[in-house]
Amino acid sequence: TEMKLPGQEESDISSASENVPTGELDSGPGSGLSPDGPLDTDSRELEVPKDPPLFIQLNELLGWPHAPEWKETGRWVLFEEKLEVGAGRWSTPHVPTVALPSLQKLRSLLAKGLVLLDCPALSLQELTEQVTRVESLSPELRGKLKALLLQRPQHLIQTPCTGPCWGSAHPREASQEEEAPLKEQHQNPLRQKFAAGAEAGAVLAGQLGFLEQPLGVFVRLRDPVVLGPLIEVPLPSRFFCLLLGPPTLGRGYHEMGRAVAILLSDLQFQWRVRRASSLHDLLAALDAFLEEVTVLPPGRWDPTARIPPPKCLPSEHKRLPSQLRVAKGPSVRRRTPAEDRHGRRQHAANPELRRTGRLFGGLVQDVRRKASWYPSDFLDALHPQCFSAVLYIYLATITNAITFGGLLGEATDGAQGVLESFLGTAVTGAAFCLMAGQPLTILSSTGPVLVFERLLFSFSRDHSLDYLPFRLWVGIWVAIFCLVLVATEASVLVRYFTRFTEEGFCALISLIFIYDAVAKMLTLTHAYPIQRPGSPTYGCLCQYPDPGGNESQWTSTNPKDRDDILSMDLGLVNASLLPPPECAQRGGHPRGPGCHTVPDIAFFSILLFLTSFLFAMALKHVKTSRFFPSVVRKMLGDFSSVLAILLGCGLDAFLGLATPKLMVPREFKPTLPGRGWLVSPFGANPWWLSVAAALPALLLSILIFMDQQITGVILNRAEYRLRKGAGFHLDLFCVAVLMPFTSALGLPWYVSATVISLAHMDSLRRESRACAPGEAPSFLGIREQRLTGLAVFILTGISIFLAPILKFIPMPLLYGIFLYMGVTAISSIQFTKRVQLLLIPAKHQPDLLFLRHVPLSRVHLFTAIQLACLGLLWIIKSTPAAIIFPIMLLGLVGVRKALEWVFSPQELLWLDELMPEKERSIPEKGVEPEYSFSGNDSEDSELMYQPKAPEINISVN
Amino acid sequence: TEMKLPGQEESDISSASENVPTGELDSGPGSGLSPDGPLDTDSRELEVPKDPPLFIQLNELLGWPHAPEWKETGRWVLFEEKLEVGAGRWSTPHVPTVALPSLQKLRSLLAKGLVLLDCPALSLQELTEQVTRVESLSPELRGKLKALLLQRPQHLIQTPCTGPCWGSAHPREASQEEEAPLKEQHQNPLRQKFAAGAEAGAVLAGQLGFLEQPLGVFVRLRDPVVLGPLIEVPLPSRFFCLLLGPPTLGRGYHEMGRAVAILLSDLQFQWRVRRASSLHDLLAALDAFLEEVTVLPPGRWDPTARIPPPKCLPSEHKRLPSQLRVAKGPSVRRRTPAEDRHGRRQHAANPELRRTGRLFGGLVQDVRRKASWYPSDFLDALHPQCFSAVLYIYLATITNAITFGGLLGEATDGAQGVLESFLGTAVTGAAFCLMAGQPLTILSSTGPVLVFERLLFSFSRDHSLDYLPFRLWVGIWVAIFCLVLVATEASVLVRYFTRFTEEGFCALISLIFIYDAVAKMLTLTHAYPIQRPGSPTYGCLCQYPDPGGNESQWTSTNPKDRDDILSMDLGLVNASLLPPPECAQRGGHPRGPGCHTVPDIAFFSILLFLTSFLFAMALKHVKTSRFFPSVVRKMLGDFSSVLAILLGCGLDAFLGLATPKLMVPREFKPTLPGRGWLVSPFGANPWWLSVAAALPALLLSILIFMDQQITGVILNRAEYRLRKGAGFHLDLFCVAVLMPFTSALGLPWYVSATVISLAHMDSLRRESRACAPGEAPSFLGIREQRLTGLAVFILTGISIFLAPILKFIPMPLLYGIFLYMGVTAISSIQFTKRVQLLLIPAKHQPDLLFLRHVPLSRVHLFTAIQLACLGLLWIIKSTPAAIIFPIMLLGLVGVRKALEWVFSPQELLWLDELMPEKERSIPEKGVEPEYSFSGNDSEDSELMYQPKAPEINISVN
Repeated sequence: TEMKLPGQEESDISSASENVPTGELDSGPGSGLSPDGPLDTDSRELEVPKDPPLFIQLNELLGWPHAPEWKETGRWVLFEEKLEVGAGRWSTPHVPTVALPSLQKLRSLLAKGLVLLDCPALSLQELTEQVTRVESLSPELRGKLKALLLQRPQHLIQTPCTGPCWGSAHPREASQEEEAPLKEQHQNPLRQKFAAGAEAGAVLAGQLGFLEQPLGVFVRLRDPVVLGPLIEVPLPSRFFCLLLGPPTLGRGYHEMGRAVAILLSDLQFQWRVRRASSLHDLLAALDAFLEEVTVLPPGRWDPTARIPPPKCLPSEHKRLPSQLRVAKGPSVRRRTPAEDRHGRRQHAANPELRRTGRLFGGLVQDVRRKASWYPSDFLDALHPQCFSAVLYIYLATITNAITFGGLLGEATDGAQGVLESFLGTAVTGAAFCLMAGQPLTILSSTGPVLVFERLLFSFSRDHSLDYLPFRLWVGIWVAIFCLVLVATEASVLVRYFTRFTEEGFCALISLIFIYDAVAKMLTLTHAYPIQRPGSPTYGCLCQYPDPGGNESQWTSTNPKDRDDILSMDLGLVNASLLPPPECAQRGGHPRGPGCHTVPDIAFFSILLFLTSFLFAMALKHVKTSRFFPSVVRKMLGDFSSVLAILLGCGLDAFLGLATPKLMVPREFKPTLPGRGWLVSPFGANPWWLSVAAALPALLLSILIFMDQQITGVILNRAEYRLRKGAGFHLDLFCVAVLMPFTSALGLPWYVSATVISLAHMDSLRRESRACAPGEAPSFLGIREQRLTGLAVFILTGISIFLAPILKFIPMPLLYGIFLYMGVTAISSIQFTKRVQLLLIPAKHQPDLLFLRHVPLSRVHLFTAIQLACLGLLWIIKSTPAAIIFPIMLLGLVGVRKALEWVFSPQELLWLDELMPEKERSIPEKGVEPEYSFSGNDSEDSELMYQPKAPEINISVN
Repeated sequence: TEMKLPGQEESDISSASENVPTGELDSGPGSGLSPDGPLDTDSRELEVPKDPPLFIQLNELLGWPHAPEWKETGRWVLFEEKLEVGAGRWSTPHVPTVALPSLQKLRSLLAKGLVLLDCPALSLQELTEQVTRVESLSPELRGKLKALLLQRPQHLIQTPCTGPCWGSAHPREASQEEEAPLKEQHQNPLRQKFAAGAEAGAVLAGQLGFLEQPLGVFVRLRDPVVLGPLIEVPLPSRFFCLLLGPPTLGRGYHEMGRAVAILLSDLQFQWRVRRASSLHDLLAALDAFLEEVTVLPPGRWDPTARIPPPKCLPSEHKRLPSQLRVAKGPSVRRRTPAEDRHGRRQHAANPELRRTGRLFGGLVQDVRRKASWYPSDFLDALHPQCFSAVLYIYLATITNAITFGGLLGEATDGAQGVLESFLGTAVTGAAFCLMAGQPLTILSSTGPVLVFERLLFSFSRDHSLDYLPFRLWVGIWVAIFCLVLVATEASVLVRYFTRFTEEGFCALISLIFIYDAVAKMLTLTHAYPIQRPGSPTYGCLCQYPDPGGNESQWTSTNPKDRDDILSMDLGLVNASLLPPPECAQRGGHPRGPGCHTVPDIAFFSILLFLTSFLFAMALKHVKTSRFFPSVVRKMLGDFSSVLAILLGCGLDAFLGLATPKLMVPREFKPTLPGRGWLVSPFGANPWWLSVAAALPALLLSILIFMDQQITGVILNRAEYRLRKGAGFHLDLFCVAVLMPFTSALGLPWYVSATVISLAHMDSLRRESRACAPGEAPSFLGIREQRLTGLAVFILTGISIFLAPILKFIPMPLLYGIFLYMGVTAISSIQFTKRVQLLLIPAKHQPDLLFLRHVPLSRVHLFTAIQLACLGLLWIIKSTPAAIIFPIMLLGLVGVRKALEWVFSPQELLWLDELMPEKERSIPEKGVEPEYSFSGNDSEDSELMYQPKAPEINISVN
């Protein structure tokens, strides 16, 4: 039901942030946050030691002089969480900002203060001992300070069920026994966020009246140790920092404490300080941090405003010390944005889309590659996540089968229908899962093939052909053509399908969906005409053929009293006012202009249509709203079309009107009455039609090739980090082999469906569980296996026996879902964004990347050309030559090629992609230098380079 | 149509940013940006000299060594605009950020460089001469540099009509003649943004191969002078900065150039540098800037990300040098946030809501105060802006008159109607405009009064009273009670109406609106039943009373051929299948159960209802979208309900169905047939009813008092900066006087309507025209006068003659607008936000101010109490005692008082407001210290303290 999947977006982000230093927190001890960060697929094995993640907590001394107590007022992992004192809750995580003077004051305090590196203390008691050995303190003050430091701090521990509770809200006197971690520390739900090996840093700051001069202590413990109740989670502390002073600075100590916490939460600083051997190293690390900070001018930014965490963090690799960067050589070279944009296609193109030059060479390679993974394709499915994936994809698949089955049944006058759709989906889907090159793909009816089938049916009806036999031959020819394409390794041509082609393909199909849905609704008003006041469609009465039959019955009653009763005395005539169906039952003939009309159906159908469309759209938006826990939100969003259909069915059943319903046979037999499951090879057609079928088959082959391969390319994008490789040739081979089978049984034709396959992948994502507040979970890969798909299709096969209950679904609901699919698909492409730009004044245009680099007039020209192509396609689609539209779609590739004369490669790089020849003309080293206009490109934020969404996504769910 | 007006939001912002240093740029030369900024109403007269605004431009040297040329790559006023080189456009304005090292390098470059303060150069030539007098340069290099500096730079000048054009795209050789400002400079549309007196700062930066060491020059010209083509707008330059060096630093010079531009765009730095007398002062200014900057840590923020301009800039006053701050004393003391929150009510309370203690004392004061402004109330209207305000408010007023008139007509069985609504609006509105204390108020039918009138009518119907005479007495009594309220200065009690009361008031009325709209639609399905397949409402035939009359006509035709013709042979019976109306025309009787039903109307009405509701909602959202120029967007948003009604009427007219339409008399006479304009004082009622009418009148008086005064408080908020003061007593007096008049003529009752009055104020806003890119225009005040309102109501009066065309409006459309009004009103209150919080998991809750300061459980408790109150009110509303709901609304004040036992003052301060007693208990000095929990409050961003939106806003427009 979701056209742009959440997983899609998330994976975009996580792939865009490949170089974010998150580490694989769930992959065991020792791994974790590291300064080198980039866990790029090609740079996973780095020799730089990985540092454990660090949790930093700021305990502030409040209430001096009356009742001094420590209170945790801030915490950091990646972002800052601040204690909202009044509300007793943690703030939302935000980017930590600090005033420059605080950092500078901190620097001078540390320079004069006590710095203990590799301190051997093994408990808070020992640490306190060490820390208070400062010359400026008298023994008395030292004792007072020690007692204060041992005082148990207040933590706000938010348990999800019971709300906030204050850990040790009543500070007790410190004693040595209390050094053991407390129960509430262990119960802290935050603890589960940290993998074994995580460490803590404690910062204690505040104003202390009895001090005469500021006291700054920075400690790195040799062995991290749990410092009693100091930290809200029982993590061993590695760093300890004490910043106290006389109350002249006010909140200055709090700000310095924040500054030290922000420093420690910085990976580079952390990396340096872990290796520092002297005060000088510590200060050098601070200076290196200052070298890199960004400055917000005071008059233009409110320093108290909280900045939400950015979607994508800057690359840590750029910040590496240069010697490390050189040592690791080009393998960890950060890919430039332009490379990123190309990486997807280049990665996809690299192994699987290279021509071998031998007949069936690509297929053989595919089979060989996949064979080695075959056992693991079943073993890898042994994970509970796969169960929920099966349920989710099963529901999506049967929604798809119902919608497309219903529409196909209507488009082909019942030559196919819901039963065929269920059967075909189950059988071909299961077979494909077992054989395919990319078993994550879900085979399904798709929009383009539906459009073609509709055109093929109307063509055969116009020429009085026997449809199913004709269709059988088309299927056989398609299989032959596809095998030729497999043999000649035509799949490598897929690289010529740029975004321009994909968008043209998607836009045309979406528009056909939208147009058809609305047109079908308007057609309903012909079948069920609206009764205007002046229209003659009023009145109907039931006349009996036999004048003598029931005469006495009608004449015996008094007409004046029974105006409102079903039958009434009409004098000598045998007639009644029974409704037409009952009239026919009693052997009469309905007579009158009103007999053929069923009132109220037209408008009620429109209401049902709007209900399913608007409800599905609304539920889709619930997914991105703030409401409900994310599980509920995801459910509502994912099953928006199922829920919309259910709601509509309920409404329809409640009112009980005779709306047009989905056509479902009562038993397990083909929808078309009178035919068996096997289609006769010739039927009523002349023999030569089996040869002539090659012509439409050629068109369908083009369409299937485009539909199948574009989906393949999208699924095998580098950002999904598939390990087992793609199998373009093998996939096409499977589709070809299934073609004659479905044609012979009169089942729909199937190719891979983009959106449902992406949903499948998305439900199989492996993600790091433990993540810092405010940080998005990092993406680890996909559980690539064949079992979930197989299970889905077995369930679909079983559901055939549920099909009879589907006859309660009104058709207008399905048209509404159809409209929803069209609208969502067309809204997800960049082309639509550019069309919208035509309506947006330059001043208000969003800060899109291509608008930064391509003049607006050129952007508009590109959009106008796309619009013109689309208009041309639409005109062709409206003529009797409509069936040749697959060739015209292929023509888009030619138009795209011709665009190279109009637009510069730079412009095409930003608005589209480059075609293979152009790519080859680029030196191996990288694309960026060739395509940069000035030095400015490096100023584009990385978070703008997010991979694009799938373009071909017409499919329910 | 907008419940939350844009002007509302804008004025909120501008009032929240009162202290932003924008100055009144259109108020003539000499004024403008100043470091002291705060143009608070009470601190306008400051003696600190105002500095002119500064436009800073960065010209970068590009293309060295092949073809060196200067290109403008950045510009600043408040925010930064960056040249998008590839796209040839200016970026959207954003908060300038810079790396700290750039600022530090700049500092050391300036420290070693040439600093000329009060340089006497009078032309670019002379300036170049002065600037190149550096010891490190040989005479030859000096000449080369001079030539380079005189070279004409490239500017990107975006003209709105023709798109971008490159000023002097082909750099020519420099000559002295070219020093005069160029034509394209003068034609630059940016120029209009600057008032006379604005100055420019030119920054020239880049790498220059022939230099051996960096060259840094900072010049302050004694007299600002137009430096030839250096700046894209022909403004005289005050500052000139040259940062050139050998190409070792790469883009370092560009970044240093940006740093100096950011410094110059800072008002404090500018203020200091304008007064600097030595290099030392310059560096001190830079250091002072550094003292204030906020730092973003490198690993958590991408330095290339662009931050959009904040809604509200931090107060410049806080940044003033302390001696200045002290000198100005308490009058410019920045109000604390808590004071801001209270300020509104305190300001409103201060002069007008203080009790005099004399009978009619408040009224006398009001009249005295307003009388002095009376002449200016007409003279101030002489401004073209008033014309568009009249058109806008006129359209809003008649939409209001139609909707409320239509609904009143239906609620009172035609005792009132659209004609009465037009007449009453025109007459009372005009009278009020001439007499009122606050002539910006628009008198109108409002939701609460409509609800009361509906209840009053059903009460009188249930007790078989003659409605209009009864209503006349209610009106007379209301006038008496209101006069008593005026005499006793009851309006000062308005201070007890806190947000709690306002929200309860608004929520109840909104819910009644929503419930009524849906209920009315469901009632339609009784009037126009839906025809189910089994339902007996089928068939109808026309029977003629005279058996012998037309016999020959019916028997002569052959029934089998004419099934579809209007009349058919029914044997010996005189009957036909004519539709009921035609049947009746021909003298027959419609017979049969189907005769009473009109098919299709029920569902079509629902469609019309949804059309007007959804279309109005969608158009409302257009206003905040990016599409269309802002004028079009504003038009669509402002007239959303008019457009929705028009669309629905078109649809209805196109289909021509017999939907229920608005009841409008054909000529100028009361809607109720048979009554004259004057209502007879007793009619069919007993005499004692005129006394008993005092009881409902008491209830209505409470309601009118609440509705009128809450509107008054909202309109007279301090943030609108009204100069002529309020007139609460006078306003209530006017409403009271008009009451018997409208009652005697049987016209609706009128009070001030919040939303339409706010729209009126909004259309009369005075705003600074010239503003820096990215900055919101600053709000200067409202054109307070009586003429626009008067003109609106005269036009409304004329429109009475257009009323007959209103009979084409279907009632379901008005119900849709009714629903829209209810939904929009209830969505605009904080209570709704808090109810939504119940559904949002704590993690995803928005960063609302009260959530920072009040525990979530307490927030939920407050919401639950409000919900319970609302539930109780709803139950009372559903009982026969419904009519007493005004008393229950007043009971909310009591509940609010009782809440003081449950919640602490701090919690109530954040969730609601404090009641007068509590306010008085706070020492004069300010609220903040008493109510702060810790020092943390000061960390709340100022931009979160935005005044609340109006709560009572049920009214079309």
